[in-house]
Amino acid sequence: MADPSTTPPLTRASVLAAHSLIKPYIHETPVLTNTTLDQLASTPRTPEELQGTEWEATERPANPKIRFWFKCENFQRIGAFKARGAFHAVERLKQTEGLEGLRKGGVVTHSSGNHAQALSLAARENGIPAHIVMPTISPPPKIAATKDYGANITFSGSTSTEREAVTREVIEQTGARLVPPYDHPDIILGQGTAALELQRQVAASLSTSGTTNRRLNAIISPCGGGGLLSGTALACSDLSPSDPSTPGPILVFGAEPSFSGADDGRRGYYSGTRIESVKSLTIADGLRTPLGAYPWSIIYERKLVAGMYSVGEEEIKKALRLVYERMKVVVEPSAVVGLAVALFNEEFRSMVEREGGEEGWDLGVVFSGGNVELAALGRLFGEE
Amino acid sequence: MADPSTTPPLTRASVLAAHSLIKPYIHETPVLTNTTLDQLASTPRTPEELQGTEWEATERPANPKIRFWFKCENFQRIGAFKARGAFHAVERLKQTEGLEGLRKGGVVTHSSGNHAQALSLAARENGIPAHIVMPTISPPPKIAATKDYGANITFSGSTSTEREAVTREVIEQTGARLVPPYDHPDIILGQGTAALELQRQVAASLSTSGTTNRRLNAIISPCGGGGLLSGTALACSDLSPSDPSTPGPILVFGAEPSFSGADDGRRGYYSGTRIESVKSLTIADGLRTPLGAYPWSIIYERKLVAGMYSVGEEEIKKALRLVYERMKVVVEPSAVVGLAVALFNEEFRSMVEREGGEEGWDLGVVFSGGNVELAALGRLFGEE
Repeated sequence: MADPSTTPPLTRASVLAAHSLIKPYIHETPVLTNTTLDQLASTPRTPEELQGTEWEATERPANPKIRFWFKCENFQRIGAFKARGAFHAVERLKQTEGLEGLRKGGVVTHSSGNHAQALSLAARENGIPAHIVMPTISPPPKIAATKDYGANITFSGSTSTEREAVTREVIEQTGARLVPPYDHPDIILGQGTAALELQRQVAASLSTSGTTNRRLNAIISPCGGGGLLSGTALACSDLSPSDPSTPGPILVFGAEPSFSGADDGRRGYYSGTRIESVKSLTIADGLRTPLGAYPWSIIYERKLVAGMYSVGEEEIKKALRLVYERMKVVVEPSAVVGLAVALFNEEFRSMVEREGGEEGWDLGVVFSGGNVELAALGRLFGEE
Repeated sequence: MADPSTTPPLTRASVLAAHSLIKPYIHETPVLTNTTLDQLASTPRTPEELQGTEWEATERPANPKIRFWFKCENFQRIGAFKARGAFHAVERLKQTEGLEGLRKGGVVTHSSGNHAQALSLAARENGIPAHIVMPTISPPPKIAATKDYGANITFSGSTSTEREAVTREVIEQTGARLVPPYDHPDIILGQGTAALELQRQVAASLSTSGTTNRRLNAIISPCGGGGLLSGTALACSDLSPSDPSTPGPILVFGAEPSFSGADDGRRGYYSGTRIESVKSLTIADGLRTPLGAYPWSIIYERKLVAGMYSVGEEEIKKALRLVYERMKVVVEPSAVVGLAVALFNEEFRSMVEREGGEEGWDLGVVFSGGNVELAALGRLFGEE
C-alpha cells in the first residue's frame, strides 16, 4: 500500500482526482427513485407499528417529507462500491511504485468479502497478481467467486491475529503490497466517488425536469469499517455553491445495525471514543467491522458526519423486503440499513421533519452492494 | 370489453396507435445488457452439462454468438407488462363506450395474477370501479395487493366454470365490461408496445455507440396465454427498412416451460392444432395458461412467430439464479424462460449459430415481470 504520508490530502478535491483516475474502470451506476417508498417514508408511523420499539411511548410519531434518490452500487462491478476503492488504490500504487514492480510482487489483502473480489478484479485488469488471505472456514461460494477473478488464495485461521500473520508471510515471500479494505486514505477517496456521481445525477435529473426549487439535502450511507461513509463525507465537504451539482450544503449521516453491538460507530460518535472491537452476527454482514482510525478522524474528529443512527434486524429485513418487492432490485442486507433508518428510526425521522420543514428533504441513500447468497436470502424470507 | 368486431386490425400500425394511447400511463422500461450472460450464451455447453438432458448424445454442442438486450418489464407499473394491455383496453373502452358509462358499470375480470392488479390500477386512475373475481383459495398476499389497488373482490370457486359463472353474475348486477387477460385484440395490441420500445431502444443504443454493423435480429418472449408473444409478433411484422428503429427483419420466438405439458403452445404450433387445456404446476406460474384463440391466429395461422421452444424446471431455476446473481434484478420465474431457452436449449442455440453465423445475433429478451413472492423464492433457493 502507498505510504499514507505520500497520499493525497483527505479533501473533496482529492475525491474528484480519484474519480478521474478510476473512471475508465468503474460503472457510473444508475440512481433510482420510487414513489411508493417516498410515500411510505412521508407517512407517520402508527402507534401499532411503534409498539414494542423504543419509541412506543412517542405521543406524536414523526411526520417528515422524504424523496429518496437511491445510488445503486449493487450494479457496480463485482456488485458493490468496493470496486471504487480497490481500483483507486491500485491506480495510486501504479503512480507511486510503477507498474513493473507491482506486476512482480502483486497486491495482497485479507478479506473474505466484496473487497477481496474488488482487489482481485482491479489487479487482474492491470496484469498484477492478487493474493487473498481467507479463513479456511469461508463459505465455498465466496472462495469460488474470488478464484474466478484470478486471485491466488492462501488460507488462514479465522482470528484477525492468524489472518494478519499469514498476510505478513505472503508479503515476505512475494513482496506484495498490502491493500487494506477500508482504513487507508486511497480506499476512502475511492469510495467517496459514488457520492460525487450521486450529486451530479440528482442535479441533472432535477434540472431536466425543471425542478429548480429542490436539491440534494443529505446522504445516508451504511457504516461498517467506515470507508464508504467517510469518503461520502469528504465528497460532501468544502462544497462550492457555484458548482451546479452542489447548489447548497449536503449533510451526511451514517447508518448501522444495532444488533449485539454492531453500532460501534454510533456509540463511539456519541461517547467521543472510537470502539475498536465488534463481535456481532447481524444479518447486515458487511457491517460487522469496527470503524477504522482514518474514517474516525473524518467522521468524528473533523465532524464531517452530522449524525449516526441505528436500526434492528427486523427493520433491516422489512426494508430489504420493500426493496425486493417494490423496486425489483437485488441488494444485500447491509445495503438497506440507510433506508431502514429513514423509514423506521423515529429520531432520524423527527430530525428530518424539523430540518426539512414543509418542503422536506431530497435524501440520497447509498445501496452499497448486491452480493447476497440466494440460499441465505431464501432462509431469511422462506421462514415467514 | 369492446366488441372484437370494432377493434383495430391486428397490425403493427395498431400497436403504434396503442402505444400513443397508453404512453401517459406506463413506464418506458429500461433495456439492460450484461457481458457475463453474453459470454455464457456464446460458449458451447460442455458434454457434462448436457448429460442427462435430451441432448446428451449431441456430438458437437452448439456454438452461437449471442448479445442480449433485456427489456425489463419487471420495472413496469404493477411489476409486469400486463399494465400495457390493461391500460390499452381501458382507453379503448373509453373511446367506444364513453367514460361516463364506464364509471357507472365498471370493468371486471377473473384473474388472481398480474392482470388483476393491472386492470385495477388502470381502472382506478380513470375513476372506474374494478371488479375482480378471484378463487377463494388465492394466496392472501395476492388478494391484499389487488385490494391495495382499490378493486372490489368477489370470491368464487377455483375451476374456470365456477369463476366464469361468478363473473357473469357480477356483470348482470353491475353492468361491468369484461376485460379478459389475453384473448382479446385490445390486450394483444397493448402488450405489443413493449417490443416497439425495445426496437427503438436497441437502435438508439447501437447508434449512440457508433455500432452501425449490428441491429436487433430477434426477440424471444415467454408464452402463457399468448398475449405478449402475439403482440410482440405484430410489433415485428410489416417492418419498414426506412424506419431507423427497424433496419432489417426481426424474428420472433416463443418460450415455454416443458413441465407437465405447459408447452401447449409449442406442441400446438408443431402439430397444427391449438391445445385448449393445460394442467401444469410449473414454477413459471404465469405460463400455466393455454394459448388463446386470437394469439393462436397470429402465432400459428399467420406464422408471425418463427418458432417455439421449451425448457425444464431446472433450467428455469438456473436462469433465475443467474439473473439475480449477475444482473441484480428481481424477476419472476416466468420472466426468465426466454433467457433459459437461449442459454440451455440446444435446438434454439443451433438455430442461432446457423442463422447468425460469424456475426451472431443481437437478441431481445422480454423479462415479463418481477412479481415474485419472497417466501416462494426462499423455498426455491433455500433448499439448495
